[in-house]
Amino acid sequence: MMKDINIGLIGFGTIGTGLVKLLRQNEELITKKLGARLVLKKIADIDITTQRGVKVGKNLMTTDAREIINDKDIPIVIELMGGYEPARTFVLEAIAKGKHIVTANKALLATYGNEIFPAAQKKAVDIGFEASVGGTIPIIKTLKESLVANKINSIMGIMNGTCNFILSKMTDEDKMFDVVLKEAQRLGFAEADPTFDIEGIDTAHKMAIILSLAYGKTVNLKDIYLEGITKVSREDIAFARELGYRIKLLAIAMLKDGAVEARIHPTMISSGHLLANVNQNYNAFHIMGDASGPVFLFGQGAGMMPTASAVFSDIIDSARNVLNGTNCRGPLRSISETDMQQIKLIPMDNVETKYYFRFSALDRPGVLSRISGILGKYNISIATCIQKARGKKGAVPIVMTTYKAQEKNVQQALKKIDKLDIVQGKTILIRIEDDLN
Amino acid sequence: MMKDINIGLIGFGTIGTGLVKLLRQNEELITKKLGARLVLKKIADIDITTQRGVKVGKNLMTTDAREIINDKDIPIVIELMGGYEPARTFVLEAIAKGKHIVTANKALLATYGNEIFPAAQKKAVDIGFEASVGGTIPIIKTLKESLVANKINSIMGIMNGTCNFILSKMTDEDKMFDVVLKEAQRLGFAEADPTFDIEGIDTAHKMAIILSLAYGKTVNLKDIYLEGITKVSREDIAFARELGYRIKLLAIAMLKDGAVEARIHPTMISSGHLLANVNQNYNAFHIMGDASGPVFLFGQGAGMMPTASAVFSDIIDSARNVLNGTNCRGPLRSISETDMQQIKLIPMDNVETKYYFRFSALDRPGVLSRISGILGKYNISIATCIQKARGKKGAVPIVMTTYKAQEKNVQQALKKIDKLDIVQGKTILIRIEDDLN
Repeated sequence: MMKDINIGLIGFGTIGTGLVKLLRQNEELITKKLGARLVLKKIADIDITTQRGVKVGKNLMTTDAREIINDKDIPIVIELMGGYEPARTFVLEAIAKGKHIVTANKALLATYGNEIFPAAQKKAVDIGFEASVGGTIPIIKTLKESLVANKINSIMGIMNGTCNFILSKMTDEDKMFDVVLKEAQRLGFAEADPTFDIEGIDTAHKMAIILSLAYGKTVNLKDIYLEGITKVSREDIAFARELGYRIKLLAIAMLKDGAVEARIHPTMISSGHLLANVNQNYNAFHIMGDASGPVFLFGQGAGMMPTASAVFSDIIDSARNVLNGTNCRGPLRSISETDMQQIKLIPMDNVETKYYFRFSALDRPGVLSRISGILGKYNISIATCIQKARGKKGAVPIVMTTYKAQEKNVQQALKKIDKLDIVQGKTILIRIEDDLN
Repeated sequence: MMKDINIGLIGFGTIGTGLVKLLRQNEELITKKLGARLVLKKIADIDITTQRGVKVGKNLMTTDAREIINDKDIPIVIELMGGYEPARTFVLEAIAKGKHIVTANKALLATYGNEIFPAAQKKAVDIGFEASVGGTIPIIKTLKESLVANKINSIMGIMNGTCNFILSKMTDEDKMFDVVLKEAQRLGFAEADPTFDIEGIDTAHKMAIILSLAYGKTVNLKDIYLEGITKVSREDIAFARELGYRIKLLAIAMLKDGAVEARIHPTMISSGHLLANVNQNYNAFHIMGDASGPVFLFGQGAGMMPTASAVFSDIIDSARNVLNGTNCRGPLRSISETDMQQIKLIPMDNVETKYYFRFSALDRPGVLSRISGILGKYNISIATCIQKARGKKGAVPIVMTTYKAQEKNVQQALKKIDKLDIVQGKTILIRIEDDLN
């Protein structure tokens, strides 16, 4: 006889609606693959009246999440409300009741992961969080399972669709940041208050989760170097193009002599690289394993149905465990929670990479020699230099790219250069990663 | 106390050597993630004397695979010998002894899958085969687990590194097929007898495995339409470029009104598409799920360490099952083996796609009208037409691309056109897929 597995959903927003839609749409296929029927027994949300465009019986709806958490017949709880509280409380309570958790809540896991995962391990319940990073892209499974035998030398990710939409539009249509942001808001690709996305905070949350999987270590969120996209200008995008680059908000993690470097900032990458060709609101990950070599994954990082697809992969994983009593057959993150340690990241000052500078300098003799003289003193070697518009009055842009240099030296050199009487305004700095494979 | 899990390796070639290398190289990391020690207890190969560049104790080596198959202390058998026999016999014997199997052998699974998988399900043992398709790319896991709730509307894959290396080189360096094939052989990207790769047979094997995962159906290998790359010419690559396309050997599976279409042939795809930018010997998959939208996966499809990385993901999956007694918690392929059915694919005659034609026609008045007249009669609409070199003596190329047309009509039209007195030589046909997302 076909078994039923009950699931309870907390949070009936966009993704929650997608989940119900997908369950209805592909029910036969899902049942066949699972060998059991998934039954959505209860949905909790503070709003149980708004029509979501999916048919849900009134008796399924409740405003009280604890009707799900305390229901002995629901072994799997899906948390799709987002935010810190009451999500954290609900998840911890559900774990305490022995429920398996499926969640898309990156903010929650990045901030309270060290509370939630050990609690789950103690109760031997699953935490599925494929949808928390990269939406529909199987990045969690790939790091946890597929690349399990690899040292992860680097991960570079485009992890925020809003930022990627804005930068792609600015690049392809030569538009200004503010104009594109408004367009993104109109299209629903950016929130009314877009801070969380455009300042890179959402990316940092995802990066923290990625680090815990790739390195079996947790980090302090604040230690991840973070720069959003608000200062990326049309002018720099145009110079990038001239230099053979595209600008992307990259989250970069690298293993260097056993230590980990993690930073998020607008980055120039070669226009021929796969990551440079991730456009619109898509996400992507470029992983370099010591055995695998480069692995590149691409897909929708958000959205109703793509995210629901990822949530479902976790639900079915957990449902298989419920059916077979095979929960917690592997670590929840990368290694046993009792072995997880918090590490210090390599300080940004010590990071070495290549740089793009755009100086605003007066068009006078000797300008280039004074700027390059200071760079030289700080061990910064110039790779290319573009100086245009000679003869114009006022400041003109001088663009340089460098070979690998140390961040601390770069910051000190720019401080000195910005004080020169011939330099007007703050020098623009964008980091370059072009020795990707 | 830390447990040991014994593994036995049958086949000590390139991938087998990579496996031993990786186990030595990342032993600490693997042990930490698994929570147990993987112990390579025995290696069987007909050649136990050649040095492979990895240290292996003499007592580990045997020429008798049954020393592994019959060893009660080895729960996981890794078959990396390739080919049909004795691989098939060994795998079936190991299954009968209750061993979990990890294999990279696509030929075996594509041909004897309907014997091997049901036998494994009966004995409740795992069959890990991530390395059989796409090398290091997690395509098996993605189809089985990550996209489990999706209807797979299409899969387009570059599944053979040799072909991709040859086509990429021909395209980027404007070289002829024979020249590049020799280069590929010299570099070790092509076998001395390259038939298996360049005629698409290897790709067909992989396609059969992919179909069983994506659609829960098995097919007769011979029913997959198959065209290799030996007829791709510099001239067509140049015309493709002019039309904004690149030529790749694509394996294409599509769901059409519930039926499945599967074909392998040189294909023109838009040069901006991710698949068009998969160069060298890399592999890639572009999957369109009904909920996920496009998912794109890229990596090394072969090679010692990338393949070993995939083999390891299966070994660790199985080792976790051995540790926890959680074997066979999901179907081995897509659905229970007892539900797997063999289906008929949509016949190639009924396939509808876009086409590129290159006619060799005498440069006389009325040529275009006679050719296009025949195409029109068969319901084939011309999208673009390139006619060059007017005034030259002898045959000149006339290139056309079409809107969607039916294969049967196309074949019949070309047969008529090739009989025209003004047409010399056989018309070249290359299929186009340019409405990918």
